[in-house]
Amino acid sequence: MHTNFHDLLDSYSDVLVRVGLNVQKGQQVIIVAPIEAIDLVRLVTKKAYQIGASLVTPMYSDPEITRLRYKYAGTETFDTAATWLSDGVTKAFDEGTARLVILGRDPQLLKDANPDCVARVMKAESLANKGFYSLLTKGHSNWCIAAYATEAWAKQVFPGMTAHDAVKNLWAGIFSASRVTKVRKGVLSSDTIMNPDPIEEWRKHNVKLHEKASYMNEKNFDALHFVGPDTDLVVGLASGHKWNGGAKMTKGGFSCNSNIPTEEIFTTPHRDKVDGIVSSTKPLLYSGKWIDGIKIRFEKGKAVEVHANSGEDVLKNLLSQDEHACRLGEVALVPHSSPISASGILYKETLFDENASCHLAFGLSYGTCMFPVEGETPEDLIKRGANKSIIHVDWMIGSDKVSVYGVKDGVETPVLLNGEWA
Amino acid sequence: MHTNFHDLLDSYSDVLVRVGLNVQKGQQVIIVAPIEAIDLVRLVTKKAYQIGASLVTPMYSDPEITRLRYKYAGTETFDTAATWLSDGVTKAFDEGTARLVILGRDPQLLKDANPDCVARVMKAESLANKGFYSLLTKGHSNWCIAAYATEAWAKQVFPGMTAHDAVKNLWAGIFSASRVTKVRKGVLSSDTIMNPDPIEEWRKHNVKLHEKASYMNEKNFDALHFVGPDTDLVVGLASGHKWNGGAKMTKGGFSCNSNIPTEEIFTTPHRDKVDGIVSSTKPLLYSGKWIDGIKIRFEKGKAVEVHANSGEDVLKNLLSQDEHACRLGEVALVPHSSPISASGILYKETLFDENASCHLAFGLSYGTCMFPVEGETPEDLIKRGANKSIIHVDWMIGSDKVSVYGVKDGVETPVLLNGEWA
Repeated sequence: MHTNFHDLLDSYSDVLVRVGLNVQKGQQVIIVAPIEAIDLVRLVTKKAYQIGASLVTPMYSDPEITRLRYKYAGTETFDTAATWLSDGVTKAFDEGTARLVILGRDPQLLKDANPDCVARVMKAESLANKGFYSLLTKGHSNWCIAAYATEAWAKQVFPGMTAHDAVKNLWAGIFSASRVTKVRKGVLSSDTIMNPDPIEEWRKHNVKLHEKASYMNEKNFDALHFVGPDTDLVVGLASGHKWNGGAKMTKGGFSCNSNIPTEEIFTTPHRDKVDGIVSSTKPLLYSGKWIDGIKIRFEKGKAVEVHANSGEDVLKNLLSQDEHACRLGEVALVPHSSPISASGILYKETLFDENASCHLAFGLSYGTCMFPVEGETPEDLIKRGANKSIIHVDWMIGSDKVSVYGVKDGVETPVLLNGEWA
Repeated sequence: MHTNFHDLLDSYSDVLVRVGLNVQKGQQVIIVAPIEAIDLVRLVTKKAYQIGASLVTPMYSDPEITRLRYKYAGTETFDTAATWLSDGVTKAFDEGTARLVILGRDPQLLKDANPDCVARVMKAESLANKGFYSLLTKGHSNWCIAAYATEAWAKQVFPGMTAHDAVKNLWAGIFSASRVTKVRKGVLSSDTIMNPDPIEEWRKHNVKLHEKASYMNEKNFDALHFVGPDTDLVVGLASGHKWNGGAKMTKGGFSCNSNIPTEEIFTTPHRDKVDGIVSSTKPLLYSGKWIDGIKIRFEKGKAVEVHANSGEDVLKNLLSQDEHACRLGEVALVPHSSPISASGILYKETLFDENASCHLAFGLSYGTCMFPVEGETPEDLIKRGANKSIIHVDWMIGSDKVSVYGVKDGVETPVLLNGEWA
């Protein structure tokens, strides 16, 4: 590891507390993290208290416990979720608690698990967390998802390396993408230079993303037209859709960056107005299985033909989780030259990979991605094109061969040409 | 460590799952444990799933997070508790979830913390957990408290030893007291013999404790008279008090052993009928401070004169937590020859030390230690002598120099003579 690894981790924890969550004086903070991330959790806790947090509650996860469940629990038990805990966290979030999730997932963790059991668990957990995600998508309180380079994850990202080198390289990627170190194009290396003021870098980055979102909001396109190899898709946009990107406002009147890193601007597709064919450009990891070579035909918003070179059954199961899981809840634009994309690394983690490529998400749309209409009911939102589902799963459709055009009154305006802002 | 340490830990986890919690098919299980106890948590999880648990949720604690709070949080924040989490756990317990707490506390953790802040946190947590402890004292679902030999704890128990030897010796004590190894009198050593069937040992031990409790219930004494050095105390017993000890029945109709180890039988004192003077025989650790040489005079149930050679301020603060914190909620009998007492070790952990000595507890009494009266209200229970408080703190008053007499209609019958069953 770097001789100055502790300094880098310290600076990273600062980004999470001050940019990611933007912890407020008197706030409670929940940190969900793998046990391996204990050093980062402690740094985040210290900084949160220094800023004035009233109470920090870490909730450590242990992947081995998950593995033991799939290995030893009875098949009749897999529809069980810890609703008592989801309800508690929902209550906390409703009362204004900040929530940081530190990811460090082993993409192979569930490879030996029974896929039926995995699907049942994911559904039970989605149902248990419905109330929480409803608050979250409304921007009720501040939340942030970030990453920690666990060994199991790093070995999957850099399979040819020793565990030590893999972790080192994954950290280099995380620190660079999180603006803790200088963002550089090309392959990442451990030969990194610390950013003297990552908080200021994030301020500038947020301004840029806000400008892009504002431009798209002014244009108020009716639809986006994606054109590329095996892709010719018109994604109608919801009526009164709002583009977001970078720091966003919470109900408390302060901002947070819910994803560290983030390079996307994103909005709400119209759930009944998506037509054509679209192909994935990166594999999707879902419930422990790789879904690759996705090709889907949409008709009036619905995925009517679903094909994948591998994992097709997992994909089809996902899209049948509920009535509207087969419709879109998000469309996002990311230039191919984004630092994460330029690194050439497939992170095998949506948090990173979605910021390397234009993407769509099946399922639930974000309330924050619709301009509010006074006195509007949830049903009115659906009529405008918003989608409701217990799932929200991103998958990548962008590359340097895909162009995106904004459509307004039948006229097409280039937005991204061959993956770059037009 | 022993060459067969894993076998011992495996056997211990079996005792916790099958005797301590007695996990039922389809039950959810919560495990609260320090991160250091991860190997035991995983063994317990595996066995709980094998028995048919529907979901096991570990909740790891990290003492360093507690230390960071006292070091860096603002003084205005120390009345905050994670009520959202207490409420969630209460809901789980109300719905029949089993709860295992694995202790491995560092007795010195809070030594540098501001005692005012510690007292405020303990009060905030007591209030947040009021609903949970109310269910717990009613025997609503199965729960168990057991221990793990963490390094910080072991070093306090065996201050003269290396960390390695201290941990080894503390494990020897835990395994022996938990009947995983042959229970032997005298100083514990690592030269222990595994018990071929600890579950059967626990069955026999529970029978013995049940017999003692039944004897005391048949006698239905009006009071207990404690006589010893600086002790002459009459503890009136609640009307319709019930003696318990060993395995107890939950509302679900199955038994659990809520303390591993346990050597006590215990019941409800009358909160208005305790009179005389009593002295502690072991130090009490409370909110990170040692309280030693306690001498208290009771009058009509209330501690009216409170003295301690050290920690008197902490003790007085404890007894003023609420209106009835200064009255008793439990009286327990333990023979001086109990294996834990015979080991001669001061464990500096109530779970162990209370099973080496007769003791009293200030505060809340146990609903399960009162024979039920149909149609009775909570107020009626108080009239019979039960106590209500947000605290429940045990302290030791037994030794080989203390005798206990049962009083019935003015006649005294020996119960313990010089610390041994009469």
